Amino acid sequence: MKRRTTVLTSDDYQIAEVDLPALGEGQVLARVLMFALDPYLSRSMQTWVGETPAWGDGTIHGRLLAEVLESQASSLKPGDLIAGLGRWQEYEIFDARRVQYIDDGLTPPSLALGVLSGSGLTAWLGLRVAELVAGETIFISAATGTVGSVAGQLAKQRGARVIGLAGGEAKCRHAVEVLGFDACVDHRAADPEGQIASAAPDGIDVMFENVGAPSMDAALPSMTFRGRILLCGLAAHYNSDRPATFRNLAVLLFKQISVTPLAISAHAGLLSQARRELYDEIAAGSLVYDETVVDGFENAPSAYLDMLAGVGLGKRLLRIAGADEHRRPG
Amino acid sequence: MKRRTTVLTSDDYQIAEVDLPALGEGQVLARVLMFALDPYLSRSMQTWVGETPAWGDGTIHGRLLAEVLESQASSLKPGDLIAGLGRWQEYEIFDARRVQYIDDGLTPPSLALGVLSGSGLTAWLGLRVAELVAGETIFISAATGTVGSVAGQLAKQRGARVIGLAGGEAKCRHAVEVLGFDACVDHRAADPEGQIASAAPDGIDVMFENVGAPSMDAALPSMTFRGRILLCGLAAHYNSDRPATFRNLAVLLFKQISVTPLAISAHAGLLSQARRELYDEIAAGSLVYDETVVDGFENAPSAYLDMLAGVGLGKRLLRIAGADEHRRPG
Repeated sequence: MKRRTTVLTSDDYQIAEVDLPALGEGQVLARVLMFALDPYLSRSMQTWVGETPAWGDGTIHGRLLAEVLESQASSLKPGDLIAGLGRWQEYEIFDARRVQYIDDGLTPPSLALGVLSGSGLTAWLGLRVAELVAGETIFISAATGTVGSVAGQLAKQRGARVIGLAGGEAKCRHAVEVLGFDACVDHRAADPEGQIASAAPDGIDVMFENVGAPSMDAALPSMTFRGRILLCGLAAHYNSDRPATFRNLAVLLFKQISVTPLAISAHAGLLSQARRELYDEIAAGSLVYDETVVDGFENAPSAYLDMLAGVGLGKRLLRIAGADEHRRPG
Repeated sequence: MKRRTTVLTSDDYQIAEVDLPALGEGQVLARVLMFALDPYLSRSMQTWVGETPAWGDGTIHGRLLAEVLESQASSLKPGDLIAGLGRWQEYEIFDARRVQYIDDGLTPPSLALGVLSGSGLTAWLGLRVAELVAGETIFISAATGTVGSVAGQLAKQRGARVIGLAGGEAKCRHAVEVLGFDACVDHRAADPEGQIASAAPDGIDVMFENVGAPSMDAALPSMTFRGRILLCGLAAHYNSDRPATFRNLAVLLFKQISVTPLAISAHAGLLSQARRELYDEIAAGSLVYDETVVDGFENAPSAYLDMLAGVGLGKRLLRIAGADEHRRPG
């Protein structure tokens, strides 16, 4: 595989046959059902040497949904559904202590890769870290992505005015009509900066940033004094060799705006509460979620690049269609 | 005067004769001795309608040192030295409650426009807000400006490793040899990013930013995990129509770096302590300060533009040479 790629193309991916090691004590062999096509993975794809040791062999290592085939762990049995971090393979070996058991009641189980994964937790924690309160205005970029759509719906529940930013009229209509945003600005239309200002007549108190410089820069002039920017993602800059440019950077200083990055790992003590609340919302039907599913292992590269280009709504998932045999490969 | 200027030139300034109103109760008439050539003023110069009502007549309104000529206030008498905000005029009327009386012991009295003004307070407060502790590494842009030079010296006293960034070899040598910085990188030389990395082998814990995107971007890759950026100034972006560009913006997220703007006004409760400590440092001779003084009211525009271009060390001041008559004009 290529190393040190700045802008990923399909040439940067290849599919290979690999042997799995023998199953060890406490491990399970599982058939992978779905991968989460998460933007943050593209950073590790730029070097393939990876941010974590798990990338050491040059295989993408992300969040998966899988079905247990063989178990050397007392906690899991064949047929159990699990979610966890693993390599993008048709079959993977997991440490049973490091996977999440997916309850039969979770429908669809792919929620374990979306609303009930890091995406939903990011949305839930983000509103808390930003200390969003009723009556405030929040601006959310990538409004129809999983993080953005959950953050927007939770912010509405908390009494905020919610303004989204999305690419294209269809996504914007979806954000308002289905997800319940108060307004959504199409960043492909003319003068997004002016449109944001019109949509936020009282200013933006909290910017929930998932994209990067283009959306931040357009919203900065509308921020209120001492507004807060919560940095949850910089998707525009993961797979780009173009510099991030701002025309309104000085607003940070003149309006005394803080920028706080969010990492789930920094809030371990809140995760079980977050997960429970999100689960209850899903069970009660009070949270809308979207999934865009592409079938076929061989389509993983194009599906991943499409996701980076903004194709699709909500959680982008790759489903492995052919893997319907319950046997160990090779 | 021109309105909505993006990049200031000498054509944007003019000198005019104005009449002063009659002195009211509680006011003093003062002869202005010096103006502080402060970068932040350029923002208001771009519109001339101003950030504050005081700019309403299109006259620059900044920090001045002045000598009282006539007083209608019991707290001040002719001959007293005062510092405060006023219009860039040879004579100005001040509200006695809104000026600072300059003690005879303060030598030179121009310190009231530099180390003992907002510049020094910004340096003192900045280290406190950033929670800099001994053993950490701090990176300071515009290292030989008043804010940077005071911040660097105080940071050394607090046991930090101090790395400066300045324009040109002479300024860098001054930062190390006179101000006591551990290292100073010349941003005009090749590869400032690499030089900063070499100067900060353990990474940068605190970035004390006075300039903007060029210095931030060069230092971002050297920041430690959960490093803190204290935003004190964005001088590179006050008088520029070029966008601010970053190649390393995503580091904010990957390294979980917070950006906190500093405004003196948000820390009113600490100002008297800060002022007293800075005064004591000056009195004890333990704080080096630099001043670059230009003489002549007519040279104010060029001196101001030179300051923006980085000419000079420490506090840039305009001294009114001809104003040596103790009488009310016109």
